[in-house]
Amino acid sequence: MLQFNDIRKKVKNKGFSIFSMFGKDRYKIHPAEFASAIDSMSFDHALLSFMELPYDTQVSVFSYLNVLLQHKLVRSLSPQRAGYLLNHLSSDDRTVFFSGLSVSERSKYISYLDEKNKKSTQDFLGYPKNSIAWHIDTNFTVLSKDMTIAEASAHLRAFQKDTEAANVIYVADEAGKLLDDIQVRRLVLNVPTMKISEIMDGSFVSLNVTDTKETAIHKFKAYDRVVMPVINDDNLLLGVITIDDIMDIAEQKDTSDIQKFGGVEDLDYPYVKTGFFTLTRKRATWLVILFLGEMLTATAMGHFEAEISKAVVLALFVPLIISSGGNSGSQAATLIIRALALKELTLKDWWFVMRREIFSGFTLGMILGSIGFLRISLWQYLHWFNYGEHWALIATTVFCSLVGIVMWGTLSGSMIPIVLKKCKIDPATSSAPFVATLVDVTGLVIYFSIAAVILKGTLL
Amino acid sequence: MLQFNDIRKKVKNKGFSIFSMFGKDRYKIHPAEFASAIDSMSFDHALLSFMELPYDTQVSVFSYLNVLLQHKLVRSLSPQRAGYLLNHLSSDDRTVFFSGLSVSERSKYISYLDEKNKKSTQDFLGYPKNSIAWHIDTNFTVLSKDMTIAEASAHLRAFQKDTEAANVIYVADEAGKLLDDIQVRRLVLNVPTMKISEIMDGSFVSLNVTDTKETAIHKFKAYDRVVMPVINDDNLLLGVITIDDIMDIAEQKDTSDIQKFGGVEDLDYPYVKTGFFTLTRKRATWLVILFLGEMLTATAMGHFEAEISKAVVLALFVPLIISSGGNSGSQAATLIIRALALKELTLKDWWFVMRREIFSGFTLGMILGSIGFLRISLWQYLHWFNYGEHWALIATTVFCSLVGIVMWGTLSGSMIPIVLKKCKIDPATSSAPFVATLVDVTGLVIYFSIAAVILKGTLL
Repeated sequence: MLQFNDIRKKVKNKGFSIFSMFGKDRYKIHPAEFASAIDSMSFDHALLSFMELPYDTQVSVFSYLNVLLQHKLVRSLSPQRAGYLLNHLSSDDRTVFFSGLSVSERSKYISYLDEKNKKSTQDFLGYPKNSIAWHIDTNFTVLSKDMTIAEASAHLRAFQKDTEAANVIYVADEAGKLLDDIQVRRLVLNVPTMKISEIMDGSFVSLNVTDTKETAIHKFKAYDRVVMPVINDDNLLLGVITIDDIMDIAEQKDTSDIQKFGGVEDLDYPYVKTGFFTLTRKRATWLVILFLGEMLTATAMGHFEAEISKAVVLALFVPLIISSGGNSGSQAATLIIRALALKELTLKDWWFVMRREIFSGFTLGMILGSIGFLRISLWQYLHWFNYGEHWALIATTVFCSLVGIVMWGTLSGSMIPIVLKKCKIDPATSSAPFVATLVDVTGLVIYFSIAAVILKGTLL
Repeated sequence: MLQFNDIRKKVKNKGFSIFSMFGKDRYKIHPAEFASAIDSMSFDHALLSFMELPYDTQVSVFSYLNVLLQHKLVRSLSPQRAGYLLNHLSSDDRTVFFSGLSVSERSKYISYLDEKNKKSTQDFLGYPKNSIAWHIDTNFTVLSKDMTIAEASAHLRAFQKDTEAANVIYVADEAGKLLDDIQVRRLVLNVPTMKISEIMDGSFVSLNVTDTKETAIHKFKAYDRVVMPVINDDNLLLGVITIDDIMDIAEQKDTSDIQKFGGVEDLDYPYVKTGFFTLTRKRATWLVILFLGEMLTATAMGHFEAEISKAVVLALFVPLIISSGGNSGSQAATLIIRALALKELTLKDWWFVMRREIFSGFTLGMILGSIGFLRISLWQYLHWFNYGEHWALIATTVFCSLVGIVMWGTLSGSMIPIVLKKCKIDPATSSAPFVATLVDVTGLVIYFSIAAVILKGTLL
């Protein structure tokens, strides 16, 4: 089988036409390979290559393209070809295609759809962005429990398309209420004369159409499913969700969480596909928010200007001390946010987390504080730096400040995500930089207050 | 169907026995529900509940338990029961069970296995941790291309277990070389008299046993597969990998990346299952490394002590300036690391990234610098703070430093992951805190050097 690199090489060497260049081999190329090759071309080139494909191949290749390229391609196709393409996409791919369009384009292309597709697309688009409705595939088969396996197989041969959704079939009663799901392999693994009711196990797991993407990911993982039925509140089967969509959703969600951790508003498209201005705007938003927060450090430092000018030595440890608070806060926030996302922790566990993090913070603070104390003592002892006659008091100030600030950082880092979740705000918003900024400002106050107590009457 | 919360409630109200309490309902409970319930119990309670299950249910429930509890359970079972359990697990679950054991326990429990399982387990454990070999399921069926669908179905009914791996069957030649994979649904969707060779499409995607987990995740996503065959260098079929394992692997990988971003050595087990000392040790390691790095800020500040005592006002902006460098560096590192992990970027794109990030950094620096300049001018104008007669020079120093440091932060944040990847080190190691620490130290040098140039002859 030909791999992507071969295709790319051929494209590079021989010109633009994918389809013509492979000759007989072209039937062995997986649609995902075509899509990768098309994705890496200039747009004109991509369009020409796409147009050369037979109509059915176009449909399967189209579903592997990224949604931005999908939009550009459809804009360049004739209404007939665009209509054929959009009507033959699976319903989940169609919904995702439409969801990214502007209102005017959306209504233009919806008019290309036949009545049935038009209705289902409009229905699904009516659900909120974070619900699973956009990913429902309506290509599924419902059987009656009184059929034999042989009858069921004949029915499938007549009506079911050969797609991922066909890995599981559904049994419903006369009213359309879901009774069970059956892996299609069971039709093969049992004798054809058996009745469907005999191979049902009555144990199925379903999603509700209003479920969030997180719930869907969690259920697919918990029950090791490859397809799951989606029902409404009346238990009526609306369609199915397949695991390949769940993989993509999980990956996007992790990407968005990771970007939030890094203090970037989440990019809706990959880094390389995001334009310079969008990228800079999304980064600038958070950087400016953090900068405005961080400006409070200048205010805090301003309050202690008199102390700093009396004991300049205090200023030397400012970056060390506040960054330790920030780092310990980032650690705690990261651990808690991820554990919440994976449902390892729930809000009820806050007291467990709090007790644990106070002890952790204290232990970590003692470790860093001791290293800090030793660092100052050693430099003084070895005459690498002269902290003056009160060096021991300075070292003690640094020690106590580190214990206090690391404890404070750890505690805020672990509690802020829980509080946000309680307020129904995505915990990932309390990104590491956000916690670090908060701890920077409060850390300065802790440091200079401890210094004021310990150094009163000597340096201050 | 009973859900987990009902089970938990019943367990709480009525005592320890899951199996006895559900009566007839128990046959409707999904093994994953049993496993969740058992997972939330005290160990004694979990053991008793587990022992009450029929042997076959034990096997399916066991595979949903977390590996730490699996180990504890097996240690408490008789050799007969443990042997039955371990021999009946699917080969991927078995390999993962053994991989977490100490050497002595490993050889003890391997002796419980029958010859075939012993050999395959030892084979798979011989591959490195990051290869996909540990997740290979050996329960697959190979057919000859000359069979009819009816013959193939009869063969499957006789020899194939009803597991996820049975969703796809394989066609190999006499020598055992893989020719094609066939979704089992195709046996249903085509008439029984057709030959296997007629429903083959000759297009299959396979993994090599030495492939890394990242490659496997990428291929499953790219080709939307639910099962993929694993071959060796001779093209011989060794087994299959199922998508539920890939989902778990992808989630673990993202968790590990997220934890590295947050500056924590990756926890091997969930936060709640990790003991206090392990957790603290893993956090302390990185905190201490970052602290040692950050100590260089004290050294750097020490070098500029004379400047600070002449112009204490300079110290006031230190936290603001270095944190801006750190934040912009974290942003860039996060974006690039994630894009590398998703294979949106490759090493060859370094020049594209570099040009882009220099412009981004410059733009972001100008934005933050301007805000900083305005902040100082405004405070001075409104008499909220007195920066002295040279306030305009101080504001200029802050402006120029921010432009320089944000550019430098952005550039290092984006280039360090690429350099690490080039050196075959996981880019996620250059976590945000790591970049921030680097930028803190160098940022101080940039700030005070710019100050020395601009303020020479006035404040300095």
